[in-house]
Amino acid sequence: MTDSKMNGAESLVHTLLANGVDVCFTNPGTSEMHFVAALDHIPGMRSILALQEGVATGAADGYFRMAGKPASTLLHLGPGLANGLSNLHNAKKAGSGVVNIIGEHASTHIALDAPLTSDIEGIARPVSHWVHSSKSVATVGEDAARAVQAAMTAPGQIASLILPSDTAWNEGGVPQGAVEMPAPAPFDESALDRAAEALDGSETLLLLGGTALTEANLEVAGRIAAKTGCKLLSEWSNARMERGAGRVFIGRVPYPIDIALKVLEPFKRIVLIGARAPIGFFAYPDKPAILTREGADILTLAAADADLTAALAALSTATGADDTAPAHVVTDALPERPTGRINLDSLAALIARAIPEDGIVVDESVTSGRAFSPATKSARKHTWLNNCGGSIGYGMPAAIGAAVACPDRKVLCLTGDGSAMYTVQSLWTMAREKLDITVLIFANRSYQILRGELTNVGVQNPGPRAIDMLSLDRPALDWVQMSRSMGVSAVSVTDCEDLEAALEEGLTQSGPSLIEIVL
Amino acid sequence: MTDSKMNGAESLVHTLLANGVDVCFTNPGTSEMHFVAALDHIPGMRSILALQEGVATGAADGYFRMAGKPASTLLHLGPGLANGLSNLHNAKKAGSGVVNIIGEHASTHIALDAPLTSDIEGIARPVSHWVHSSKSVATVGEDAARAVQAAMTAPGQIASLILPSDTAWNEGGVPQGAVEMPAPAPFDESALDRAAEALDGSETLLLLGGTALTEANLEVAGRIAAKTGCKLLSEWSNARMERGAGRVFIGRVPYPIDIALKVLEPFKRIVLIGARAPIGFFAYPDKPAILTREGADILTLAAADADLTAALAALSTATGADDTAPAHVVTDALPERPTGRINLDSLAALIARAIPEDGIVVDESVTSGRAFSPATKSARKHTWLNNCGGSIGYGMPAAIGAAVACPDRKVLCLTGDGSAMYTVQSLWTMAREKLDITVLIFANRSYQILRGELTNVGVQNPGPRAIDMLSLDRPALDWVQMSRSMGVSAVSVTDCEDLEAALEEGLTQSGPSLIEIVL
Repeated sequence: MTDSKMNGAESLVHTLLANGVDVCFTNPGTSEMHFVAALDHIPGMRSILALQEGVATGAADGYFRMAGKPASTLLHLGPGLANGLSNLHNAKKAGSGVVNIIGEHASTHIALDAPLTSDIEGIARPVSHWVHSSKSVATVGEDAARAVQAAMTAPGQIASLILPSDTAWNEGGVPQGAVEMPAPAPFDESALDRAAEALDGSETLLLLGGTALTEANLEVAGRIAAKTGCKLLSEWSNARMERGAGRVFIGRVPYPIDIALKVLEPFKRIVLIGARAPIGFFAYPDKPAILTREGADILTLAAADADLTAALAALSTATGADDTAPAHVVTDALPERPTGRINLDSLAALIARAIPEDGIVVDESVTSGRAFSPATKSARKHTWLNNCGGSIGYGMPAAIGAAVACPDRKVLCLTGDGSAMYTVQSLWTMAREKLDITVLIFANRSYQILRGELTNVGVQNPGPRAIDMLSLDRPALDWVQMSRSMGVSAVSVTDCEDLEAALEEGLTQSGPSLIEIVL
Repeated sequence: MTDSKMNGAESLVHTLLANGVDVCFTNPGTSEMHFVAALDHIPGMRSILALQEGVATGAADGYFRMAGKPASTLLHLGPGLANGLSNLHNAKKAGSGVVNIIGEHASTHIALDAPLTSDIEGIARPVSHWVHSSKSVATVGEDAARAVQAAMTAPGQIASLILPSDTAWNEGGVPQGAVEMPAPAPFDESALDRAAEALDGSETLLLLGGTALTEANLEVAGRIAAKTGCKLLSEWSNARMERGAGRVFIGRVPYPIDIALKVLEPFKRIVLIGARAPIGFFAYPDKPAILTREGADILTLAAADADLTAALAALSTATGADDTAPAHVVTDALPERPTGRINLDSLAALIARAIPEDGIVVDESVTSGRAFSPATKSARKHTWLNNCGGSIGYGMPAAIGAAVACPDRKVLCLTGDGSAMYTVQSLWTMAREKLDITVLIFANRSYQILRGELTNVGVQNPGPRAIDMLSLDRPALDWVQMSRSMGVSAVSVTDCEDLEAALEEGLTQSGPSLIEIVL
C-alpha cells in the first residue's frame, strides 16, 4: 500500500496498528501535532494523556508486562523524553518492550539551535536498545516497523524512533503491513546435561527470572524441584510473576544483603534460567557484592533473551521430571482477619485477604512491603509486578499500563509515599481513563529505606540534618486531598477494620480509588 | 589542608563551601549517604529536599539567576539525574551555572550491572558543558573545584561531577580552598567601530540578552538608543531582566512567528550583545525559521560568554552616548484597577498592580501571559525570569531557587496549569522551607498553546481525539486541594476583587501561598 497523499505521521500510525501497537501513552507538543491529528481519522489507536512523561513511560512498562506486546509513547523532543527517562530505565531493566516516538524539530531547524533543541539521540541512547532518527518521510513507515521489531526482541527492548517534524508533515508516507517479529534466542543446549546433573538435592538451586515465572513454567520448575530436590528461587525484582492458590510458589532472593548472603550460602550449584547470578543492589563498605557462596558452580542454561519455556521443558525432560507432580503447589489459605491499629504484619494480612481472583498487584512498597511477599503466598491467584530498575516512581504509572492492558482485571497498586510522589500526576490519568486501580499509599512519611542504608554504608548515629533529608513529615502530605484534587476518590485509614472496608469498596467499584495508610 | 581521616564526601563539601557553593537542592539515595552524613558535622551547606529531582535542578537554575553563583544538586545515580534532566536543559539554555553531584555505585560494583546501574556520563552529557567521574578519593576535592570553575564559566555552565560511592566513603580526601574563577571572554573589539556605525535610526536594532539586561546595562543601552535612534529589543526568553519604574524599558522579540516577523521586518542592521539572531521557536510548514529580514546585516559585538558590560560601555563611548540621557526610562504608572470577572487583560493589570517593590516574577504563564509583559512595563521595579529552554515545569522550581537566593524579596510565580503539573511536587518544598512565594495558577484547563500550534503546523479543524490530547478538563484539577495537600495555603478566584485580595494577602504574609485563577 502506498499513498502519496499520506503524510509521514499517518504512515507511522498505520504501521504501528498493523503491527499490533494500538495504545499510545503521551504528552505531545508542537512537533508531535501531526501524529495527534492523525488519531482523528485513523481509528484504532487508544491515546492516553499523561501530565508528565514519567507517567507515560512507566505506563508503557506496565502495559508490556501484562499485554506481552509494546505500547507506543509519544514524547515532545529531548525534554519530553528526558522526563520519561527514569521509567524507561526501569522498563529496560524489566525487559519490557516499548516503542518511543520522539518528535524532533524539522530537519532544517535543528542547526538553528532553538530553545528546545537538544541531542535527542544522546538522551535516548543510555535507556534504549535501539535508536533511530527518520531521514525522510518515505522511510517513516519502514522505521516504525523496525522499531516494533526491536521492541519485540526478547525479552522486550526499548526502541526510540526520532521523528523530525517535516518527516511527519510531508506527504509521501509509505505505511508497512505486519512484519515478522524476532524469535527469542535458543537456550544453551550444550549446557543442558550439565544443568540436569547439577540439580541434585537441597544444596542446589534453580534460579528463575523473566518469562520463566509464568504459571505454566513455574509448574515445570515445580516438577524439577520435586524430582531433583533442588530449591527454587526467583530474582529479587521480577517483571511479572504468577502467584497464589493452585500455583507453584517461588520465593525471591532477599534485598537486605546480610539476609541474601545467608539464604544463598547453602547453594554449591546454581542453574540460571532467565535470571542472573545474584549481586547486591548496592555496594557497601566491607561487604561482598557477589551474593553467592565462594566457589559456587553457576551455570546459565538460558539468558533473559532466550526461549525460557523451551529451556525449562528441556530441563524437565533431562531430569526425568516430566511425570512428577510439582512441588510447592500452594493451597488456598488466607491469613486470619487482623483487627485494631494497622502494623506491617496486619497490613500484609489484609492485602493477602483482599487480593481478588486474577488481580494484578503492582508493588512499589519498598520498606513497608518486606512482609507482603510471604504473607500473600496463599492468596487468590494473582499476578505480581516488581520494580526492576530501582528508580522510584514506577508503581502508579505501571498500574495504569496494567489496567489498560487488562480491562477485565482489578489492579492493586502498593506504593510508599516517597515513591508515589515521584509520579503523582498518575492519579489524574487514572481518573480520566476510569481505570480499575486501587492505590494503597504507605505513609510512613520518610524515605524509610534510607534510614537503614545510612547504617549499611557505615554512617552510625546520623545527626538531625542527615535525618531531615530522609524525612517527609514537615509538612505531612495529605494524600486524601492530593488524590481528590486529581479526581480520584480517597480515604485515610489507621485501623484494620477501616482498611478492610476501603479495600472491599475500592476493589469492587468501577474506576480508581486511593487509600492512605498512616503508619 | 590535608586530613587523612577526611573521607571523599567531606572533602567535597569543604571544597564546595570554600568556593561559595553553600546551597544544595537534593533528593539523595544510598549512594549519596556519605554526602548527607557530612552535612551534620560540616556547617554551612543549606540542604533543601525535593520530592522529585526536576524540582531540585529547576531550583538550581532559579538560584543561579538571582544569586549569580551556582548551587549544587545532589542526585541519586543515573535515574535521579534523569528526573532532573529537562530542567537542566532549561538551565543550560538560560546560561545558568549548576554544580551537579551525582552519586554512582562503588567503582567495583559498576561492572556487575545492578538494577540502578546506568550510563551516567551518557545521561549527563547532552545537558552538561562539563562531565567528570572522580577516579579516586584523593582527587575528589580537586574535581569539585574544577566543577565550580566550569559552572562559573560565563554566562554559567552545567557541570556534572559523578562520584562513585567508594570515592565518597574512603578516607584520604583532600579539600581545596578557594580557586580562581574564569573571567568572561573579551567582546569583539574589532567589531566595535562597525557596530557603532551600524546603529543609526529606527531601521537599526540593538538586540540584548543575558547580563546585558541588568539595570545598569539597560541604562547604557538606553543612552545608546537616545543618541543613535536605534531600537532596543531583548530575546523572547531572558534568564533575568530588570524592569519597572525608573528603569530603561526593553521589549521582547514576540513568540508568535507572524508577529515576530512583522516586528523585525524594519531592521536592516542589527547589533547583538549577549543575544543571538532571532529564529523561530519551532519550524512550521511554509514559514521562515529565520525571523530577521532577508539581507539584514547582523553583527555580533559580544556573544553570551563575553563581558557584556564592557561591550555596552565601549559601544556607548563609540557612539558618543556616554553623556546622553537614556531613552525609554519608565515612569511609575500602574494600570487602573479592574473589576468583575477576570479576563486576560484584567489579570495582567492586577499582576502589574500587585508586583511589590523589588519583587521577583518567575514567568511560566505560556498563553495566559502574552499580555503580561507590556502591562507590567510600568510596575514597581522588579526582576523578571523567563523559561529559556521551553521545557515546561520550570516555573515553580525556579521560584524556589529565587526565593532561597533572595530571602528578603517576594517571589511571584506565574504559571499555566499544564506547566505547573509537571513539577507539582515543588509546593511541598515551598512549604517545608517557608519560602515567600505566591504562586498564580492560570487554570485554562488545557494545553492552550497547542491549540494554536495545531493550526500553525497546518492542521485545520482538529477532531475530538486530537482536542482531547490537549485538554485538562476531564477531570478538572482542583488546585486548592492540591496545594493544601502539600502544606501550601490556597484559594480559587474568578473575580478581580478576590484576586486582588488574595494577591495582597499572599505577598504580605510570610511563607508560600497559591491562587488558582479559573479562566
